[in-house]
Amino acid sequence: MAREEIVLGPCGEKVGHYSIVKNEPVPENMAVNTWIRWLIRKEDGAPTFAMRLFEVEPGGHIKAHHHPWEHEIFVLEGIGDVRIDNRIYRVTSGFFIYIPPNVEHEYWNRGSTTLKFICIIPHKPSTEDKNVKKC
Amino acid sequence: MAREEIVLGPCGEKVGHYSIVKNEPVPENMAVNTWIRWLIRKEDGAPTFAMRLFEVEPGGHIKAHHHPWEHEIFVLEGIGDVRIDNRIYRVTSGFFIYIPPNVEHEYWNRGSTTLKFICIIPHKPSTEDKNVKKC
Repeated sequence: MAREEIVLGPCGEKVGHYSIVKNEPVPENMAVNTWIRWLIRKEDGAPTFAMRLFEVEPGGHIKAHHHPWEHEIFVLEGIGDVRIDNRIYRVTSGFFIYIPPNVEHEYWNRGSTTLKFICIIPHKPSTEDKNVKKC
Repeated sequence: MAREEIVLGPCGEKVGHYSIVKNEPVPENMAVNTWIRWLIRKEDGAPTFAMRLFEVEPGGHIKAHHHPWEHEIFVLEGIGDVRIDNRIYRVTSGFFIYIPPNVEHEYWNRGSTTLKFICIIPHKPSTEDKNVKKC
């Protein structure tokens, strides 16, 4: 299939190249020089979880935050640091990251190229507790 | 962090490089020359969904099947064909694929290098219906 199209098929399937999905800036109160593409979302009929692709530009940063749902992340390109609670992990292409619900986290691009990663989240919070986890 | 370690942190986080996760052959009744690594699974504490990395060697094939849960896929490397119901989609690095529950699907490596993709599934079936979807 052509890279210039996103197919929504008759069984409900969706197939496309990430580069043509709308690229939206993450608001400044959340991140600096960071973009998000929602590749697969609830509105596509996906019952349980959503797949997003983040691009953090050189010098970019996703600010410290926490929420009552988990992340499953796979790093595609670039060099970054991920802070999870008080630990910092250096990650590059091929690293995977699991962040449990309510754990504070923060990301930085530490390289000279764009940091790209896939980040999957559930549609619903995974816990009713909204307090940051003390580990 | 070193590429040679997988960290299980005190908040329940898991961080590592996919290449050192155990690589298991997919049984011959399911696939030919295909390997799976379970990067993040229920046993890691992940509440909702699991992340796996598939490697289909040149000439390899994942046979036609269906099941009552969805896939969200991101292609990392290689060239493959994915059949979803009666439609075949050619995919390469950067393509994403959403396959709804109960839709028959099948994969082939169509290149001379390993086809690698991330595939996320929920821990529980997404529907009680187990019949293949007619579209």
